Amino acid sequence: MNEYKLQPLVNIASICAKKQVKHAVLSPGSRCAPLCMAMVRHPEIITKTISDERSAAFIAMGMAQQDKSPVVIVCTSGTAALNYGPAIAEAFYQNVPLIVLTADRPDEWVDQQDGQTIRQRNIFENHVKASYHLPASFEHPDAQWQYDRTISEAINTANAFPKGPVHINIPIREPFYPAVDETLNFDYPVKVIESFEATLDFTESQWNLLSDELVGYEKILIVAGQDSKNEELAASLAQLPFPVCADVISNYSFLPNAIRHQDVFLNKVDGELTPDLLITFGNSVISKNLKLYLRKHKPKAHWQIQPAGNAADTYQALSRIIRITPEVFFSKLAAMPSNDLRETSYLNKWKREDSNYDLGKAEFFTSQPFSELEAVSTLIDQLPESTNLHLANSMSVRYANFINIKDRPDVEVMANRGSSGIDGCTSSMIGHSLINDKPNILITGDLAFFYDRNAFWNNYVNKGNQKVLLLNNHGGVIFRMIDGPARQPELEEYFETFQHSNAEQLCKEFGIHYISAKTREEYEVAIKEFTSISDKPCILEVETEKQLNKEVFQAFKKI
Amino acid sequence: MNEYKLQPLVNIASICAKKQVKHAVLSPGSRCAPLCMAMVRHPEIITKTISDERSAAFIAMGMAQQDKSPVVIVCTSGTAALNYGPAIAEAFYQNVPLIVLTADRPDEWVDQQDGQTIRQRNIFENHVKASYHLPASFEHPDAQWQYDRTISEAINTANAFPKGPVHINIPIREPFYPAVDETLNFDYPVKVIESFEATLDFTESQWNLLSDELVGYEKILIVAGQDSKNEELAASLAQLPFPVCADVISNYSFLPNAIRHQDVFLNKVDGELTPDLLITFGNSVISKNLKLYLRKHKPKAHWQIQPAGNAADTYQALSRIIRITPEVFFSKLAAMPSNDLRETSYLNKWKREDSNYDLGKAEFFTSQPFSELEAVSTLIDQLPESTNLHLANSMSVRYANFINIKDRPDVEVMANRGSSGIDGCTSSMIGHSLINDKPNILITGDLAFFYDRNAFWNNYVNKGNQKVLLLNNHGGVIFRMIDGPARQPELEEYFETFQHSNAEQLCKEFGIHYISAKTREEYEVAIKEFTSISDKPCILEVETEKQLNKEVFQAFKKI
Repeated sequence: MNEYKLQPLVNIASICAKKQVKHAVLSPGSRCAPLCMAMVRHPEIITKTISDERSAAFIAMGMAQQDKSPVVIVCTSGTAALNYGPAIAEAFYQNVPLIVLTADRPDEWVDQQDGQTIRQRNIFENHVKASYHLPASFEHPDAQWQYDRTISEAINTANAFPKGPVHINIPIREPFYPAVDETLNFDYPVKVIESFEATLDFTESQWNLLSDELVGYEKILIVAGQDSKNEELAASLAQLPFPVCADVISNYSFLPNAIRHQDVFLNKVDGELTPDLLITFGNSVISKNLKLYLRKHKPKAHWQIQPAGNAADTYQALSRIIRITPEVFFSKLAAMPSNDLRETSYLNKWKREDSNYDLGKAEFFTSQPFSELEAVSTLIDQLPESTNLHLANSMSVRYANFINIKDRPDVEVMANRGSSGIDGCTSSMIGHSLINDKPNILITGDLAFFYDRNAFWNNYVNKGNQKVLLLNNHGGVIFRMIDGPARQPELEEYFETFQHSNAEQLCKEFGIHYISAKTREEYEVAIKEFTSISDKPCILEVETEKQLNKEVFQAFKKI
Repeated sequence: MNEYKLQPLVNIASICAKKQVKHAVLSPGSRCAPLCMAMVRHPEIITKTISDERSAAFIAMGMAQQDKSPVVIVCTSGTAALNYGPAIAEAFYQNVPLIVLTADRPDEWVDQQDGQTIRQRNIFENHVKASYHLPASFEHPDAQWQYDRTISEAINTANAFPKGPVHINIPIREPFYPAVDETLNFDYPVKVIESFEATLDFTESQWNLLSDELVGYEKILIVAGQDSKNEELAASLAQLPFPVCADVISNYSFLPNAIRHQDVFLNKVDGELTPDLLITFGNSVISKNLKLYLRKHKPKAHWQIQPAGNAADTYQALSRIIRITPEVFFSKLAAMPSNDLRETSYLNKWKREDSNYDLGKAEFFTSQPFSELEAVSTLIDQLPESTNLHLANSMSVRYANFINIKDRPDVEVMANRGSSGIDGCTSSMIGHSLINDKPNILITGDLAFFYDRNAFWNNYVNKGNQKVLLLNNHGGVIFRMIDGPARQPELEEYFETFQHSNAEQLCKEFGIHYISAKTREEYEVAIKEFTSISDKPCILEVETEKQLNKEVFQAFKKI
């Protein structure tokens, strides 16, 4: 057999495999065929093929997030690549590693009116950690070296904290397919550059400096940003006598010192909860009232714990970035003997404000008509063991944050809160579901759901762990919740954007089990079936009126 | 009443209207609400609201193409904007003017983990004619001047040849909505900059120079690239004694001297058709064999007629760009007295090769099993008067180009051949259908169709002029047509990407009349209903086998 003319492209798959990349999501095309073949035939890489690149990239992002490891995505040249844009931006802000491989025409064919040829260099530049452009010819050994080196560099960059997407644009000349006497060789010698990471730790004097300052603060508040669950970190946080504001997306709302309802009550309290020292870690918070409160009642100092990368000044009070992992920082903090002595009245003040909502919830809903908020609350109360709970933008994640989750360290919560788009919430859930066997339950509104309906248009939506609670009020109810748009004559047509669809036909088309509920009684039966069915995907659609949902939501805030 | 704090945003609508922008396609969002309100309330602007920005932008592109005038698109901040990417690239390469308005957070909030905030500056830079970024504060009068001036500049740029998209990124501070005592004022004095365009013409000496050279060439070939129909140009071209290679997307295939089947026969003829002078105009050609033939058999000279902008060197033989409109150039050429004297054996040689296919078609299909190619041919034979025929990428437009259209100057053909993506073919057709009352018939394959299924997810798919012939072979048959992928074991799963869907459920969901045909007999009945129904949208789905389609297509090439 002869050597395949595009062997350096085959080597990409070999290097990916050697660098522990396990999954590739491919979208079909002619120019990307050599890349797809290399990924499909490599014995250690598991591939999926998904035609709509927008959905494919969000599915890959969900997989990478679940796997905590980079996933490769491959598409052909032209606008195919631009369809990756939304998921790449979300991955960038949520720090999810993606290796984005876009096939391209060789440079000399750009702008020559050939098909599927656009200006692909740097198209994702604003939202990737690095952009690479490979040579179209690799006869010279330096070009092969550039090929191999770039793949290692790209994966190392994607994996470095904060993780994120990288883009490799790959011009490919015809012929794309191996000749009859050519073969793809996965034993070809390739160069791999390993990144060996040392551990960040404080010297004794560094920690003394911080801890001396820390004991001088009377009121210390911790805010957990969006993050995946970390048991070591949770154990440390649980030992602290400080309140931990834990939005539903933080994955720390189960802590004994967690504050869960900051978004409901913080617009009703005065400055007495102002911290002296605010300590934060993780990505975004969802509670708007928490942000507004801390911007208004500024702490004397604000420390963000983050090993590397730009730190956001979310509360306009950031005074110090501490370059270490939250696990190390909070384990040191938990071990401080002075914790035992610290006054806990500040924690108690937060707890007092917070406890109303957990306590009043059950009674509240029995006094109200059936609503989306209640549907969310009921589902959260009955989440199966070890559920991955996915929350779509924008009203669903807010509902869930108002209700929040208590005492469920087994549940993990995901939401596309990097850029908070509605464009890939279902696809992200599907991505998770493909590489775990836990129940994956998405709570979504109708706009996000139908926007991303192509999440179901592939051959992988066939697992019993794929579940959607669809809150269908036929439009974007969030606009009704806000005073400004609710007052405008354009509300229904232009803000809410009335839409007729329900999910019944879609379920028929894709072989998904469909359950519908419009009343509390129907829902209480439906939810049992929904949470227990395990042999096929399931959608439970709850149809309710917009105005009623607004009224219940507003009443809840007044508990 | 008081002045609305965001009055400069209202002025955008006023300036658009004064500059003859008639249509705006809005996608709902919070931050873009002031822009949406301004467009909706302006008495001279017609607005549509469409939730999926990917589809919205393609719909707007179709409208702008139909209207030959810029259309405004408005979306909110975050990944919403990135969903515009594919349509903007297509508009850029097809020279369709779009005014892209993206709402943004003020600069200081970028990368601060606030919702729906990404790095929006210049996100479309590779594929727009210009990118603008407006100030977030406009208390200073210079800022208001910048606001007004930028809108004029942007529209002038979009309209200048070659037309195309422009991007205006608009940071907007809260509050977004007018207070109760504030009103939007459309009589506010605004500054408008008009672009007054003079006419390009040759001086006598310039024309003498060209015409003297021209009469020295014995064999002159004209190739019409993709363009919209122009009656004046058509009349000139028809008078010339030269062959005009007219792909189906050129809109000149009805000319008496048109060559229609170059893609079928040019791989079978030797160099005898080589032109001495090649004259081209318009955008891309679809016939791959024409490109390959002319790259191999290079003309002595190649003139591209194009008033401004980069000219593609499609045949690697471009020697002169003539900066004038094709209308002026070819009217001069048609008026040359030497035309009468010119030998026409070169034209006859082309005609001889070409005529086989029109003549042999009917007989061919009766000898073959029913196929997609036949379905396309039958539809083309029965196109209603003044049809807008839309051809999706990638197999549909190729089928139609192999068959081509004869003697139908009333039919206009559109296809997304700027970047040849499958991502917005249906949406583009819907865009056209919204602002004309002609029949709009899209021929599409299943991959392009289901990819862009959200084209139907809006409240405007309700007109009887919206028709789709869906060629459903449950995958991308184009890969089977090519020898390379057809030989690979990945063919069905990874290249063709088998998909189960048919359009029946989708039609039920969106209230579209559904017709299905699997045999010639069914199709012949169905096509009558399909072309005559005029009270609601209609989809005619033809399900056939991939392998059979391949065989018929290959047999056709051997007529």
